[in-house]
Amino acid sequence: MISQETIVALASPSGAGAIAIIRLSGNESLTIAEQVFQSVSGKAVSKQKTHTIHLGHIVDDGKVYDQVLLSIFKNPHSYTGEDVVEISCHGSTYIQQQIIQLLLRKGCRMAQAGEFTLRAFLNGKLDLSQAEAVADLISSDNEASHHIAMQQMRGGFSNEIAKLRAELLNFASLIELELDFAEEDVEFADRTQFKELLTRIEFVLKRLIDSFAVGNVIKNGIPVAIVGEPNVGKSTLLNALLNEERAIVSEIAGTTRDTIEDELVIGGIGFRFIDTAGIRETKDVVESFGIKKTFEKIEQAQVVISLPNPSKGGAFQLNEIVTEYEKLKNKYPLKPILFVINKVDLLTEQQVDAIVSQLETLNVKPILISAKEKTGIDELKNTLLSFVNTGALRNNETIVTNTRHYDSLLKALDEIQKVKFGLQSNLSSDLMAIDIKQALYYFGEITGEVTNDELLGNIFANFCIGK
Amino acid sequence: MISQETIVALASPSGAGAIAIIRLSGNESLTIAEQVFQSVSGKAVSKQKTHTIHLGHIVDDGKVYDQVLLSIFKNPHSYTGEDVVEISCHGSTYIQQQIIQLLLRKGCRMAQAGEFTLRAFLNGKLDLSQAEAVADLISSDNEASHHIAMQQMRGGFSNEIAKLRAELLNFASLIELELDFAEEDVEFADRTQFKELLTRIEFVLKRLIDSFAVGNVIKNGIPVAIVGEPNVGKSTLLNALLNEERAIVSEIAGTTRDTIEDELVIGGIGFRFIDTAGIRETKDVVESFGIKKTFEKIEQAQVVISLPNPSKGGAFQLNEIVTEYEKLKNKYPLKPILFVINKVDLLTEQQVDAIVSQLETLNVKPILISAKEKTGIDELKNTLLSFVNTGALRNNETIVTNTRHYDSLLKALDEIQKVKFGLQSNLSSDLMAIDIKQALYYFGEITGEVTNDELLGNIFANFCIGK
Repeated sequence: MISQETIVALASPSGAGAIAIIRLSGNESLTIAEQVFQSVSGKAVSKQKTHTIHLGHIVDDGKVYDQVLLSIFKNPHSYTGEDVVEISCHGSTYIQQQIIQLLLRKGCRMAQAGEFTLRAFLNGKLDLSQAEAVADLISSDNEASHHIAMQQMRGGFSNEIAKLRAELLNFASLIELELDFAEEDVEFADRTQFKELLTRIEFVLKRLIDSFAVGNVIKNGIPVAIVGEPNVGKSTLLNALLNEERAIVSEIAGTTRDTIEDELVIGGIGFRFIDTAGIRETKDVVESFGIKKTFEKIEQAQVVISLPNPSKGGAFQLNEIVTEYEKLKNKYPLKPILFVINKVDLLTEQQVDAIVSQLETLNVKPILISAKEKTGIDELKNTLLSFVNTGALRNNETIVTNTRHYDSLLKALDEIQKVKFGLQSNLSSDLMAIDIKQALYYFGEITGEVTNDELLGNIFANFCIGK
Repeated sequence: MISQETIVALASPSGAGAIAIIRLSGNESLTIAEQVFQSVSGKAVSKQKTHTIHLGHIVDDGKVYDQVLLSIFKNPHSYTGEDVVEISCHGSTYIQQQIIQLLLRKGCRMAQAGEFTLRAFLNGKLDLSQAEAVADLISSDNEASHHIAMQQMRGGFSNEIAKLRAELLNFASLIELELDFAEEDVEFADRTQFKELLTRIEFVLKRLIDSFAVGNVIKNGIPVAIVGEPNVGKSTLLNALLNEERAIVSEIAGTTRDTIEDELVIGGIGFRFIDTAGIRETKDVVESFGIKKTFEKIEQAQVVISLPNPSKGGAFQLNEIVTEYEKLKNKYPLKPILFVINKVDLLTEQQVDAIVSQLETLNVKPILISAKEKTGIDELKNTLLSFVNTGALRNNETIVTNTRHYDSLLKALDEIQKVKFGLQSNLSSDLMAIDIKQALYYFGEITGEVTNDELLGNIFANFCIGK
């Protein structure tokens, strides 16, 4: 799969800006750059040292394309492990296109999605899980997903897998050795130690597999359905949550939100809020269609926020609040439901007490908030965060976010459990060796020691071009 | 106006991509970078040579922000002339924001629009017209505007102005000298040579002023009104023009066009097409409102393409074609009108001949095209291009595109003509010296030798942040 062609792509985001970066990688990248680059110093590109920057012009056939900076990275000291040239040009899309087209005419070809990282993997600069973390890192949009991707890219996950694999491999080779001496009935691999190792591997695999539930929601954002009638204060609620976080959201990007269906980062974790109408019963066809939609959305959600309307047309409606909660709980007994009473500043103390004590009988503690007076917001945030097991995050434990890794881990666990069962039932070494090999195979799939073109194709197709 | 603060901004286009560039400039940029950058080599940033690149991590308070490449440019060998650091990080918007916020906490401040280029100007790395060309270069989206911006950035325009200014300055000092010896009635400045110089300056100024008409349309695109009823084939026509150019438009950007009101690059020149309805008379209020709009749009256009409908409901309508042309010509006697007959493949040879000979009597040569059979497209393109004086472009003559320069040139010309008149009417040297000084002032305004904060503020406010 290693190609000798020199590839080129725009590496900076598409669009116009002050600077754009065009990246070349491959055997010919220095000589191709030399053909189109006139250095101000007059020195040839190929004569320059690695990790140096040169001012000059992109020129071809008498036409000056741009004044640029050229960065040189000589193999193996580059991202891909090949000779790499980065051209930092003025960020007009016209100039970007013109320079890329010129480089194509000079013998480069357009890089495919993720091809730079693929080459880095094939040249041993990254293992496969680290390469996958690069894509996660680029798409990370909050602290938690960034943290996990960063940890994975720096080899945290690979190291954990590699350690288990090395230990297992050690036992595997001892058992293979036993097979060579099969007729002599020797036992090189200490069965007690081996059982202990298998138990440890099983434990780690289970922890990693369990972490996927957390990793997956962190990567994709936690879906939260907000159930409430229009005008009950759904967007006020979200804005209150957002404003608290605004200082963090930055003066740079300028976050604006128009819809309720939006993503919000709370305490570094992404939450995807899904707006739904209320679920009170009706005979209206249109509205019952709306209720069907609501149910669908609730089913997609991991957490439900119920936002009942405590007073309607001025009338306090305690029974309706209770009924709403009971209806939700009956339909979704296993969903975490957060019961939020908004606009408590408009209720009397007695009314609030009535709600709290009434719900207490149902074993529910409502969160009382006033978006206007900014009370209850912290409690709501903390409760939302409590649905995410952030303990693992804080303790820097490895968290699995990748479905592919999750699948391989499940398969590896299955094999390890087979080996363990074989050991208990005195299975012959040769049969046990097969299961061990299979477990090793699945470990190797994660880090890329075991791979094939189709797998690589699938992984790197999800990358952006230029990475 | 020179500020000692260290500034920071995202220099690559906003959005996510493989790589993003964050740029720092100022006295503290190396020491600030040192505080947050852990080099893989372990060597301190400030100890590194200029124009070198270093792999490492952005780290603060134990948190790893990203693995990055750090490029170092030491003053005066940088874009701004100050110490510059460029951080090439993973292109997630979250990472971009996090790193910029970290740098702000460490003592940088956000750069204002164009502030990097402003500093380059203030530090003498660029003159003012070159600095302005940087913004033009970034917004250039076709060959012609790119060519002019590039030429201006490389000093073509400044050199021409500086040469004239130097010669004028020489005479000015001779005349000033005469003033010192006023009582002795000497004449250091040869009046014949001076007159010759003034004539030459006048000639160059007039040429530059004239070039603005071309420069302006090249920079902003040439507005072309297409006059024709719906379904007469306006979008087919534009698509035919576009397809011819598609090979040039690139496999990279993937141009798509949905509306007729769009910009098209033909032969490296941008044309802005403006869709208008036909102008046949009507008594319908709504439609006459439409016609009023059509007239407005035609007035904005530099060129009009009239696209009459040669057959309506199967009936050939020669008279309508002629009437349409006459109506346009009567209303806009000075506008270049291109008369295009589309769908000639649907007409008989006799019908085509009839149109041509009928229009010949009006001294009009229609362009006969069939978008479907791709005939006539080249002729249409060449005719459109003939409205732009591309001669100056081909001959690498300086073309003025900037309204500010145009204004200064007009004022300089006015002063030069005053001096010339003064010379003819034997004006005293002291009075003539005032006009010469004023002309020198306007020359200096262009290159930035004469400037003030308000002027600079206006110029750089049009830049993007990060440039």
